[in-house]
Parts: sequence; C-alpha cells; structure tokens
Amino acid sequence: MPSTFSLIRSVEFSETDMAGIMHYSNFFRFMEAAEHAFFRSIGFSVAARPGAPKVGWPRVHASCDYHRPLRFEDRVEVRLRVVEKKSKALTYEFQFMKLVDGVPTEEVAKGRLTVVCVEHQPDGTMRASAIPPAISEQIEVATGD
Amino acid sequence: MPSTFSLIRSVEFSETDMAGIMHYSNFFRFMEAAEHAFFRSIGFSVAARPGAPKVGWPRVHASCDYHRPLRFEDRVEVRLRVVEKKSKALTYEFQFMKLVDGVPTEEVAKGRLTVVCVEHQPDGTMRASAIPPAISEQIEVATGD
Amino acid sequence: MPSTFSLIRSVEFSETDMAGIMHYSNFFRFMEAAEHAFFRSIGFSVAARPGAPKVGWPRVHASCDYHRPLRFEDRVEVRLRVVEKKSKALTYEFQFMKLVDGVPTEEVAKGRLTVVCVEHQPDGTMRASAIPPAISEQIEVATGD
Amino acid sequence: MPSTFSLIRSVEFSETDMAGIMHYSNFFRFMEAAEHAFFRSIGFSVAARPGAPKVGWPRVHASCDYHRPLRFEDRVEVRLRVVEKKSKALTYEFQFMKLVDGVPTEEVAKGRLTVVCVEHQPDGTMRASAIPPAISEQIEVATGD
Repeated sequence: MPSTFSLIRSVEFSETDMAGIMHYSNFFRFMEAAEHAFFRSIGFSVAARPGAPKVGWPRVHASCDYHRPLRFEDRVEVRLRVVEKKSKALTYEFQFMKLVDGVPTEEVAKGRLTVVCVEHQPDGTMRASAIPPAISEQIEVATGD
Repeated sequence: MPSTFSLIRSVEFSETDMAGIMHYSNFFRFMEAAEHAFFRSIGFSVAARPGAPKVGWPRVHASCDYHRPLRFEDRVEVRLRVVEKKSKALTYEFQFMKLVDGVPTEEVAKGRLTVVCVEHQPDGTMRASAIPPAISEQIEVATGD
Repeated sequence: MPSTFSLIRSVEFSETDMAGIMHYSNFFRFMEAAEHAFFRSIGFSVAARPGAPKVGWPRVHASCDYHRPLRFEDRVEVRLRVVEKKSKALTYEFQFMKLVDGVPTEEVAKGRLTVVCVEHQPDGTMRASAIPPAISEQIEVATGD
Repeated sequence: MPSTFSLIRSVEFSETDMAGIMHYSNFFRFMEAAEHAFFRSIGFSVAARPGAPKVGWPRVHASCDYHRPLRFEDRVEVRLRVVEKKSKALTYEFQFMKLVDGVPTEEVAKGRLTVVCVEHQPDGTMRASAIPPAISEQIEVATGD
C-alpha cells in the first residue's frame, strides 16, 4: 500500500514569467500532476473510467512555501506523501527537490493539498462522500518524515 | 444584428514569460474571451443556460500573426469581426490594437478563429449541428475592412 | 493610506477544467491580479517603471481555502487586505465573494499571500531588501476583520 | 543534421476545460515544448546558456487545425518537422498523433509555427538577427511529407 510517490518535471518556457522564474501558481499544477500520477500508480484515475468509482476530488485547501525559485529547464522531483487519510478526505504533502545532473540537491518548495471525495449529483452539484474502499485500501498514510 | 465587438484587456503578470512579453499562447485566450463576450452581447452564452440551445463551439482552426510584443500592464483592444457565417460554422477575425492612454495606436497582432456548432451526444461525443436560428439570426457577417 | 482593495473578475472558459469549475490554481492568479491592481492604486507597479524603485516581490507563502466552486461566467469580488507589514515583507489576505446581480452573496474562498521585497543583483540572483519608503508609506495594515 | 523531432505528452487535468477536452490554446504550449526539446536535442537551448549565442526566438506566426479533441490522460506524440529555414527565421510543422497503447493511431491536430531569431538590444528591444551558424548548421529542412 503506497504512501509516497515521486514525479519528475522540467520547467517549461510557458511556465515562467517576466521575473525569469516559474510562476508561483504553477507549483500547484505540479502538485496536482503528482497527485494524479500517484492515483494512476495505484490503478485508478481522478477521472472516472468505465467500471471505476464515479467520484471527484475537489480541493478544500492548498498551500505552498517557496524557498528558492525554479527556472526554465530546471528539473524538479515532486515528492508526494499522504499525511492524512480520513473517511472523506486526503491530505498530501509535497516536497519540491531541485535536481542537478539527476541528483536531488535542495528543497525549493514545500506544498500541501487537502482534497475531499465527492459524488456528482444528477443536478450538477457535488456531495461529500466516503472514499470508495477500492481506492482507500490502496492508500496508506506515510510515517516519519 | 452585430458583426463586430470589442473587448479591452490588460496583460497580467501571469501571462508574461521569461522573455518579458506576453506568452504567444495567451493571444488565443484573449481571442476566446472576446468571442464569449460577443456571445453575451447578443444574449447568449457559449455555455448552455437553462432554456437556451444546448450547443458547443469547438475550434477547427486558430491562427495568429504577431507584429509586436505585448508587455505587462499593456492595455489592448481585441476587435472581433465575424468574417464568415456558414450553416454550422463561424469564422472570426481579431485585431489586437495596443492602447496608449486609452487610444488605439498600432496593430500588434491579427488572429483568426473558425468554430463549429456541435450538439453533445448522450455518449459523450459531439456532432456538428446547424447553428440554432435564435443565435444565427443575431449574427451578421461584417463587410469592408 | 489604503489597507484594502477590491477587484472584480469574471471566470473565463480557459480558467475552467473538465470538472466544470474554475481550476484551483487560478485562484492564485486572481489573488495576484488583485495585488497588482492594489499596487497600481497607490501609484506603483510590481514591474519597475522608469524612476520607480527597482524591486521585485517573489512569494514565500501562498495558501487558499476553498468553500464553494466558481463556474464559467461567475463574477467574483476579490477583496485584498494587508494583514502584516514588515520591513522586508507584506502579507495579504484575500476574500473571494461571489457576486449575484452585482451583489456579494457568499465567500467562496479565502486566500493568503506573503511576499518579500527583493533587489535584483547584477548576477541575476535576488536579495531580500527593505521595502522602499515611497512604497511602504503608502501601505497600511488593515484593522478589524 | 536533424530535421524532425518527436515529443510525447500526456494531457493534464489543468489543461482541460469545462467542455471536457484539452483547451485549444494548450496545443500551442505543446508545440513550443516540442520546439524547445528539439533545440536541446541539437545541443542548444532557447534560453541563452553561458558561452552560447544570446538570441531569442519570438513567434511571428502560429496556427493550428483541430480534427479531434484530446482528453485528460490522452497521450499524444507531437512530431516536429522543420519545413523552412531562412537566414533569420525557421518554420516548423507539427503533427499531433494520438497514442493508444503507445501506438500512433490518428492525427488529431496539425500546427505550424514561424519564429524569428532576434538579438536583445541594451535598451530592452529585440532586433531580427541572422541565426548563429553554430545553431543553423545543426538544423536541416525536412524533405517529403
């Protein structure tokens, strides 16, 4: 039962801003990319596939602390850890490690994301819902740092 | 029956890139913003509202010629013209005029967008469909330049 | 000396995602848009203009709590409050109020942003720096809620 | 001397819109990602590295024809071909091939990009400039289809 996951990304030109660094909002896109890759790694997708539980995962909290900028073509390892699992919610922590020659060197940012499991109602609204067991059983809370 | 529309935008920080100018992909977001405001100006929305025709407008062609860069806080007037109206498709032309003290000075870019009207099928696919008369009647092809 | 500022935005099509709601990362773009409009309201820009202090404002912390989704064409008032002013840093709080017929109805999200003042060094790096008095004098910490 | 290049991408959640498909502006981000990876494949970067020619590559033309939508988690091969090389400009053609089980199945879009080589002037403006021989020698115009 995995509790950690790691995704490697490179900063693209369109993700930089006129300050010459990755725009701060894109760290949240990277977190989400890691989250979704984590889901695929346990055999699911955040988008319901035929036969899979039809649930969604809206965010209720997102935060990021920025220590160092990332620049164009920088490679970064986004380390995801599940730090809390409730009946209807998951909390992830993300550590952004800058890679130099493929080796993690320093933490450039640290993020956190809390998502709730929802079922889409016929009227288009969403209602909080227990995480389907098939998914929940695949996810373990990480221990230690 | 309107055939032209004009939207004023300012370039935001998150729309710039490390070259210090607006990223070229954002001109297409500006075109779309003008298109959608044009739709609202004739009483419709590209998102189906209750009681309104349930159609979508996927793009089949988009292009842009760039003459001058736009920079952070630049103000630009996006001038939309309907240049072709077919039974199932519309083509818009967009002129990006840079504003200085509120006055259009020079054309910084020129774009073009062709969209087709589709109905969403129950199986999730889309099928090309005649533009609903209620919408089509509101749209006229622009004449002249 | 202003301590609050308010910006009104509409959710654009390109800001939505396949869940039919505004993508969560875009709340951070809206916060920044409000921050920069606030700067302009006190006579400055986050981009150095000729004769103005040449400083930058990288983020060290960003967070957002999401209560309700925003959808395409929703109008939202982004209320900025300066909640902390240090010699080299500012912290803003943002309240996202959904507008219905122009009237604020409910808080859909609440955000927070801490930025530090930096000077760009000749070698391309940035160094934390006291907020220039010309700017600092224009900014007051908000009191109350 | 390479004249073609191929990049594989997956569609991310933040790249979709409320129509459930990849937003049309993101095809231009994918083209650029392929262009920049092509540059790296010949030993250069669009961002000047120490010792490399200090030039930029603003776009003068971009276009895309869309045949089929791309959806979340779709994998796509972006095939770049250099179709024209002038003294100061390059034109690329991009074929977007949807991958199913890793196999290219159908062309979902076709794009085109013309970029000019510029030198950044001390006053912040850009001036068209001959493509540095070190770069130009590495690039060949593709023949055939």
